[in-house]
Amino acid sequence: MLTETADAVNGLLDRLLPTSEGPDARVCEAMRYAALGGGKRFRPFLVVTSAELFDVPQPYALRVAAAVEFVHCYSLIHDDLPAMDDDELRRGQSTCHVQYDDATAILAGDALQALAFEVLADSETHPTARVRSELVRSLAQAVGAGGMVGGQMLDLLAESIAMDIGAITRLQQMKTGALIAVACESGAILGEAREAERHALHAYAHDLGLAFQIQDDLLDIEGDSETAGKAVQKDENAGKATFVSILGVERAREQAKILADQAIAHLDLFGKKAELLARAARFVVTRRH
Amino acid sequence: MLTETADAVNGLLDRLLPTSEGPDARVCEAMRYAALGGGKRFRPFLVVTSAELFDVPQPYALRVAAAVEFVHCYSLIHDDLPAMDDDELRRGQSTCHVQYDDATAILAGDALQALAFEVLADSETHPTARVRSELVRSLAQAVGAGGMVGGQMLDLLAESIAMDIGAITRLQQMKTGALIAVACESGAILGEAREAERHALHAYAHDLGLAFQIQDDLLDIEGDSETAGKAVQKDENAGKATFVSILGVERAREQAKILADQAIAHLDLFGKKAELLARAARFVVTRRH
Repeated sequence: MLTETADAVNGLLDRLLPTSEGPDARVCEAMRYAALGGGKRFRPFLVVTSAELFDVPQPYALRVAAAVEFVHCYSLIHDDLPAMDDDELRRGQSTCHVQYDDATAILAGDALQALAFEVLADSETHPTARVRSELVRSLAQAVGAGGMVGGQMLDLLAESIAMDIGAITRLQQMKTGALIAVACESGAILGEAREAERHALHAYAHDLGLAFQIQDDLLDIEGDSETAGKAVQKDENAGKATFVSILGVERAREQAKILADQAIAHLDLFGKKAELLARAARFVVTRRH
Repeated sequence: MLTETADAVNGLLDRLLPTSEGPDARVCEAMRYAALGGGKRFRPFLVVTSAELFDVPQPYALRVAAAVEFVHCYSLIHDDLPAMDDDELRRGQSTCHVQYDDATAILAGDALQALAFEVLADSETHPTARVRSELVRSLAQAVGAGGMVGGQMLDLLAESIAMDIGAITRLQQMKTGALIAVACESGAILGEAREAERHALHAYAHDLGLAFQIQDDLLDIEGDSETAGKAVQKDENAGKATFVSILGVERAREQAKILADQAIAHLDLFGKKAELLARAARFVVTRRH
C-alpha cells in the first residue's frame, strides 16, 4: 500500500537534498544518509493520500510529503543522539551520529529542518502563496515546543516522573501525533478544503496517531530488532511507562483497534474517496514493523 | 544606536516565546533563557533599519527581526554544545547546555528554529501571503546546508584542513554572512522593493558581514572574556586559521575598514535615508565587543 508513494517520494527527496563540492559536503552526505536510508514513508503517504481527496495535483502533494519527511528524519537524527535516546541502530543501519559524528548529526538535523520550510515556501509547491504560507505555519507549529519537540522533552523526562494514561497520551500526541496530524491536514490545506473537511482529517489523524503509537509499543515488546530495524525493549528495560506497560498487552491491542475504528468513522463525509485512508488505519494496527 | 531596536525586539521575543504548564515547560524555559539573556540584537537592528528604507510599518519589521534573532539564538545554542565548540560562557552567562543539559539545549535550539518560521508565516507578520512566503524561503535558504549550517560544518573542520583566505571568506560568508544578508534583504522583501534595491542591500550586507567577522577575530585576539561575554583566544589556542592569523592584525584592521567603506558605497541609491545603515557599518569595525 505504501510502496507507490514511497518510490515517488524517495526520488524527490534525492532531488531536493543538497550537494556540495567543498568540505561542507560532509553535512550534505549526512543529510542524504539519514533521509534516503529506508523508512516506511508513512507520513508522505498520508500527505499524498489526503491531498487526493481534494484532487490536488500530485507534484504539489509530493513536495509537501517530502518536507514532512525531512522534518521526520531530522527528529530521528536528533532523538538518536547520545545526549538523547542514545540509539545506534535505525532503519536497519547505523544511526547518523555513529556513521558520522555527533556534531555532523546535529547539523544534518538542523539543515533538514530548514530544508523542509524552504521546500514548502517555494512557489513550485503551490501557485497560491496563501497556501504555501499556511503549510509553513501549520508544520512549524506542529514541530515546535508545543508539538514534536515538546513531546520529545516529555519523553526524556518520562523515566523520572510518574506517568498515567493521560500523561502518556499527551506525550504521544505531541511527540508523534502532531506531525501525523499535520501530514493529513496538509492535504486539506493544499486542496483549500472546507473547514469541516480539515477538521475531519485532523480528527482522523489524531486517532490514527495514537493507534500508531500503541502498535509501536506493542511491537517494541513483541518484536525483535532485526524486523524493527532498531533497538527494541528499550522502554521496558528503562522502566519507562508506555501504553502497554499501563494497559497491558491485551487492552492495549483492543485500544489500538478502537482508535483505528474511530479514525475511520471520521472519514464518513468523504465517502468512498477515503477508502485508502481507511485502509491505512487498518494497516497501522496490524503492521509487523 | 542599537538600544532602541533591542528594547522593542526584546519585548516582542518575550511575547512570542512559548510557555507551558506541564513538565515540557523545561524546553520553553531553556528557549527563554537562551533567547532573552542579552545580546546586541544586531541582526534585528538590520531588519528594522532596512525595512525603514521602504517605510514598512514597524510591527511587521519587528516580527521578522524576532524570527531572525530566534534563528541566531538557536545557532548559538547548538554551536556551544560539547559536541561542537564546547563553550561554557555566552553573553556573560552559562551556555544553555550548562544551565540545563545537552538534550534540553538541542531541543531548545530545534524549537527556536521552528518558532522562527512559525512567526514569519503568520498573517500578523505581513498581510500579503507572497511576502510571508518569500521571507520564509529566503531565511530557510540562508540557514540551511548551503548557508549557516554549512558554514558551521566548515568551521568544525577548519582545525584539521588547510585554510587560505578564500576558504575562510567562504566559511564566514556561509556561517555568519548568510544570516546577516537575509536580515537586510528581509527589509527589502517586506517593502516589496525593486530588484535593484534588494541587490544593493544584499551587497551591503555581504561586505558588512565580512567586516563584522574580521572585527570579531580582532576582538578575539585583543579582548578579554569579561568584555566579550564569552571565551576568547580559543581559535588562536586551537591553531585555527582566522582572518587575523592569515592577514596579521594590521592588515586585518585595514581590510575591515575597506569592507565597511564598500558596504556604505552600496547604499548610494538610497541617499540620505540610509544614514543609519551607514553608521552601522562604521560601528561594526569600531565596536569593542
